[in-house]
Amino acid sequence: MTMTLREEALKLHMDNNGKIAVVSKVPIATRHDLAIAYTPGVAEPCKDIKEDKNLSFEYTCRGNMVAIITDGTRVLGLGDIGPEAAMPVMEGKAALFKTFGDVDAVPVCLDTKDPDEFIRTVKLLQPNYAGVNLEDISSPKCYEIEDKLKEICDIPVFHDDQHGTAIACLSAVLGALRFVKKDIATAKFVVNGCGAAGSAIGRLLVNMGAQNVIMVDRFGALYEGIDAKLDRIQSYLATVTNKEHKQGTLADVAKGADVMIGASAPNVFTKEIMQSMADKAIVFALANPVPETSYDAAKEAGVAVAGTGRSDRPNQVNNVTVFPGVFRGAIDVRARAITEEMKVAAVYAIANLIDEKDLREDYVVPDAFDPRVAPAVAAAVAKVAIEKGLARKIVDPEVVRANTAKRIGR
Amino acid sequence: MTMTLREEALKLHMDNNGKIAVVSKVPIATRHDLAIAYTPGVAEPCKDIKEDKNLSFEYTCRGNMVAIITDGTRVLGLGDIGPEAAMPVMEGKAALFKTFGDVDAVPVCLDTKDPDEFIRTVKLLQPNYAGVNLEDISSPKCYEIEDKLKEICDIPVFHDDQHGTAIACLSAVLGALRFVKKDIATAKFVVNGCGAAGSAIGRLLVNMGAQNVIMVDRFGALYEGIDAKLDRIQSYLATVTNKEHKQGTLADVAKGADVMIGASAPNVFTKEIMQSMADKAIVFALANPVPETSYDAAKEAGVAVAGTGRSDRPNQVNNVTVFPGVFRGAIDVRARAITEEMKVAAVYAIANLIDEKDLREDYVVPDAFDPRVAPAVAAAVAKVAIEKGLARKIVDPEVVRANTAKRIGR
Repeated sequence: MTMTLREEALKLHMDNNGKIAVVSKVPIATRHDLAIAYTPGVAEPCKDIKEDKNLSFEYTCRGNMVAIITDGTRVLGLGDIGPEAAMPVMEGKAALFKTFGDVDAVPVCLDTKDPDEFIRTVKLLQPNYAGVNLEDISSPKCYEIEDKLKEICDIPVFHDDQHGTAIACLSAVLGALRFVKKDIATAKFVVNGCGAAGSAIGRLLVNMGAQNVIMVDRFGALYEGIDAKLDRIQSYLATVTNKEHKQGTLADVAKGADVMIGASAPNVFTKEIMQSMADKAIVFALANPVPETSYDAAKEAGVAVAGTGRSDRPNQVNNVTVFPGVFRGAIDVRARAITEEMKVAAVYAIANLIDEKDLREDYVVPDAFDPRVAPAVAAAVAKVAIEKGLARKIVDPEVVRANTAKRIGR
Repeated sequence: MTMTLREEALKLHMDNNGKIAVVSKVPIATRHDLAIAYTPGVAEPCKDIKEDKNLSFEYTCRGNMVAIITDGTRVLGLGDIGPEAAMPVMEGKAALFKTFGDVDAVPVCLDTKDPDEFIRTVKLLQPNYAGVNLEDISSPKCYEIEDKLKEICDIPVFHDDQHGTAIACLSAVLGALRFVKKDIATAKFVVNGCGAAGSAIGRLLVNMGAQNVIMVDRFGALYEGIDAKLDRIQSYLATVTNKEHKQGTLADVAKGADVMIGASAPNVFTKEIMQSMADKAIVFALANPVPETSYDAAKEAGVAVAGTGRSDRPNQVNNVTVFPGVFRGAIDVRARAITEEMKVAAVYAIANLIDEKDLREDYVVPDAFDPRVAPAVAAAVAKVAIEKGLARKIVDPEVVRANTAKRIGR
């Protein structure tokens, strides 16, 4: 009898009592083992770390440990389901961190909805981790939390729903632009949806040199001076996008667009809207689980390159190509932060894995299981960290790449 | 060339980048694996846990996950060395939890010295764990933290420096009493040191029926009405011990004692003091790394049964016999707390592993590596939890015992 997806998922989680475990990396089978790994020998690394806290990255699991931190206020499409119910997602992410990047990651689901308390708690937990991956926090609270944590923490803080999605999306967009032979600087972009993911895509597009970007949300096209209640990121985007102050609905501004990206709602990219775009149009529809347009509908509408977040269709935009490698590279060089430049480097690292000659309309971005991805991303992130003086440990990026490949057994 | 203990300990910690790792318990090798362990399948356990938070113990790693939480204010004999420097000890403990109890444990070193903030943080973290092991927190702050957390948390909270030490010590004392054929109810006990460990030993002695207990600290023998600045536990102990209001120094009150226990300072159990004890005297000297008396000095003084915390001498008192089994049993039945009755049950479970006929002066307590210990402790703790209505899940204690043995491969 075939099980439904629900039955199969519940069985996997129940049978294994979750998805991650903690293991000892050292044998404890004899009194001597105990004396070295625990008392009295353990006092030696303690004493050295007391003199130099940076040694905690070398002598303890901290050096490879990332916290996946959430308050459970915006989990998948399920909304505010609380910290206990958020656990399966965080734990799944930890399993992905391990499988795709050999990063030790633990779920940290916080039982508070107060951003100040969230921030303070992460600060108190900082000594345990080499990095913090923020996850599934409602917007606009997530911006305040991330910005403040970046200010007060001395380890990388990365909100995957924003930046992981943006990096994954733009690596696919870059591949599509190369395929249709258009340039990011001159192409016209429309991004529908100014939540955490859409706004991050807009910001990264601007940081990558896109000159013609129009952001759209329920208020229509975003422009400087718009009379709408904007969050801080939307306000910023209003000043750096849409230089021509275009106004109107998605249908209005999508006319003649080269690239349309959705991080919004199911089925809002109609055939008419897609057919109004420029020749060789590119459409990425990321709403989950039901995208703004299906891959097939986009192709039927004449779009040159389409992609969604779904794994059962070509050109999947998947954060799994991003966060394992980003953190692998950042923590291998003990980076103090993950910056915009590192994100851009990650986009190019992913996109450049596909040679010009191998690009196809249904293959503009590497697969999530492509073994080259995490090593390439890790090397690119490490390289920028070192160049920008944000690395506490200098490791040749090519060594980072080779070690990552070895760590994940690919 | 032979390495020193320091060199060997530093090498072990550096070469392995710490002692624990996180692993995925589920394969993620195909798109289908991803769809079950992560999106979209992962939404199913999330939805069910949202309706019933208790399911988080079943569907996620929470069910087997214990946090080892400290503020680093009293680490080993090193004092207040801070959260980063405390990490090797907490991580070592996590490795022991895994090796001896197959409990997944993670270090949580908090960067705060404020007890209220500590308490609040643990409360916020509660959704991630099946239990909380408090560790290396300075006294008397540790009492306030533990008491408050037990009040506000719905999972077991256990301060190992107090209760783990007390349980391990009293299991050895019980064995020694059986060997010399004395009774806990009528024997005269002197406990030197009213810090966290000594006070916990005194409380557990009283709870186990000892009628004649005298606690000693820098103020001398503790008695009701003493003119000294006492912490809350010392004040309590003043009312339940030393019913004859004996006053004086350790040397004064040790005269005629059947059992003397030290959780105090190096070399304070002099030959004269030990020789003033009753016939067939029992001495446990737990100060670390230098005990109140060496094993050999105690034997030379004519003590019938001696023990220390050292692994290189007989009758070692070692918390490793306690915390893995206590938490294994507690979390197997989803216990809401670890109570005094469970602690007493753990003492007897350990002590009873040695048959009357096998008792020797140098073998009154099982070895830390004795494979029967954790299964016996787990079964005993689970049994009391069920009997007292503190179990959220009913599992036959004999099944807990068998599963524990199987889990740790012994």
